[in-house]
Amino acid sequence: MGVDVGGTKIYAAVFNQHLQLLAKARHTTKADRGVVAVVERIVRTIYDAIDEADLTVEQVEAIGIGAPGVTDPDTGTVLFAPNLGWHEVPLAQMISKRINRPVIVENDCNAIAYGVFRLEFKGEPSSLFGIFIGTGIGGGIILRGHIYRGFNKTAGEIGHMVLDIGGPKCSCGNKGCFEALASRRAILREIKRRIKKGEHSILPELASTDIGEVRSKMLLEALKRGDKVVREVISEASRYCGIAVRSIINVFSPEVVVLGGGVIEALRDYMLPHIEKTARKYAIGGIGRDVRIVATQLGDDAGVAGCAALALERIGLCGESMAADSKLYG
Amino acid sequence: MGVDVGGTKIYAAVFNQHLQLLAKARHTTKADRGVVAVVERIVRTIYDAIDEADLTVEQVEAIGIGAPGVTDPDTGTVLFAPNLGWHEVPLAQMISKRINRPVIVENDCNAIAYGVFRLEFKGEPSSLFGIFIGTGIGGGIILRGHIYRGFNKTAGEIGHMVLDIGGPKCSCGNKGCFEALASRRAILREIKRRIKKGEHSILPELASTDIGEVRSKMLLEALKRGDKVVREVISEASRYCGIAVRSIINVFSPEVVVLGGGVIEALRDYMLPHIEKTARKYAIGGIGRDVRIVATQLGDDAGVAGCAALALERIGLCGESMAADSKLYG
Repeated sequence: MGVDVGGTKIYAAVFNQHLQLLAKARHTTKADRGVVAVVERIVRTIYDAIDEADLTVEQVEAIGIGAPGVTDPDTGTVLFAPNLGWHEVPLAQMISKRINRPVIVENDCNAIAYGVFRLEFKGEPSSLFGIFIGTGIGGGIILRGHIYRGFNKTAGEIGHMVLDIGGPKCSCGNKGCFEALASRRAILREIKRRIKKGEHSILPELASTDIGEVRSKMLLEALKRGDKVVREVISEASRYCGIAVRSIINVFSPEVVVLGGGVIEALRDYMLPHIEKTARKYAIGGIGRDVRIVATQLGDDAGVAGCAALALERIGLCGESMAADSKLYG
Repeated sequence: MGVDVGGTKIYAAVFNQHLQLLAKARHTTKADRGVVAVVERIVRTIYDAIDEADLTVEQVEAIGIGAPGVTDPDTGTVLFAPNLGWHEVPLAQMISKRINRPVIVENDCNAIAYGVFRLEFKGEPSSLFGIFIGTGIGGGIILRGHIYRGFNKTAGEIGHMVLDIGGPKCSCGNKGCFEALASRRAILREIKRRIKKGEHSILPELASTDIGEVRSKMLLEALKRGDKVVREVISEASRYCGIAVRSIINVFSPEVVVLGGGVIEALRDYMLPHIEKTARKYAIGGIGRDVRIVATQLGDDAGVAGCAALALERIGLCGESMAADSKLYG
């Protein structure tokens, strides 16, 4: 099983050993109710998905959980998850105490990158860099078949790579981070600013809520209706994204760069050509074979599939080549 | 033996198997005379160093050559080296034809990073990111004891990570690259600009040449004499450098970040505290154990030592753990 614990939703899915999705379930997270309540809701979501698949809990081989923050996969602890308000939560231990199955915990973006690597790319690229653009921006690095976590298990935090030194303030405290320029939050803030300045956009009419709450699909709708403000802001965000991809190609030279997340999922047809054009222009890595720059088609399922694959590997239920210790790159 | 082929100088050094330097020799590169002439000068520098060490060429086990550009270590070819004006030069083949010893070719910054990793850190860190600031800015990544070259063998090009999207034009065609903000070339351009604007600096008096040609040691001299313009520009360059280090910590989470190159060598006491302070502020990777941020003490010898170590490893004359195929991460 794979479980994705987000700031607003918990998504659990049951897979067979070939990573085919059998059944799924969702609940809201209700993070404000605290750790114990959220763990309770995770357990409930897991049981719902098992029930939906006509299985019993004993038939579940292992459970992989993706959490939005810094995790320690060796101990199954969520070290720090700002969106949940968690510090040092021994999540694997708490869940396995309730469900009595092996549980592993992984950073959500690492899990998504791994799911894309395994399902969409059949485990073939020598290296893959995943960039996931939603409310915030996260990333995950796959090297030689394994998640690369780095010394502090925080590798892949591309949202906090600085692109514009004098740019807007970021939630991390810095200025001009990629996340402060191209996340949905940043895009909506910029649209809001331009409307306030007197520019015309149909977004306020389209949206029944505050513009800060608008979903990516609504942005697509505004684009389709020819909204100039939305088009220009999305185009600028795509340029930032292209520059981030180019920096990653120059510094890291991955075989594949995968884009995903809610913003890319909704706006890929519009954003991807912009991103690719900007990224390839002047890229040093372009000297050799072409790095592939693609958008994932897996959507929400990448994360839960990645979690399920990691859980299976940890208990040894996978091919030899994938079974090697995931701590190798730690 | 290790040989460092730079845009202006060729430096060759003879080492024993414990990587202790026995003898060295230098010549100017004279890149404008073309590939054949430069290869001739490399050969002459190698022979001079061998002679200086009271050895014969037959006693040399292997030769490692670092070149300033994109190299293919599998074929020993320099694919592209703008400072030398080289395209697709089969350097290893050309040298071994003349000297009849095994020759390997590596990117110069990769070689420096590897030399620092082996000599200064005794091969211990799980990962090391080297940032080398001179006329330009380059980098090298060591992962689990090996150079990480990436898919296109161009990994580590941190000089072309964008830090300031609207910043000054870079030699690569982009704007606001790290190299366009904090290399010696960028520092001198900014000092020149400020002097032209009417600000007072003692640098024109100190330097007998054009300010664009000033060496890093002269900048140190100006700093020591209390030059305000130089101090402010170096301080700003240190801040850019700190932000670059922070981005690397956030995206890559290395165990060690090593700074080096002519600018750092001359100005380390002044720059390193600035760099470290900026880098650690808000770094996501700071959540776990502290990433070490240090300046190398090896100077020019890091590159030749790295080349010599790589050459020894290629022919199998090194400890088991280091002998593994360097292509592993290719």
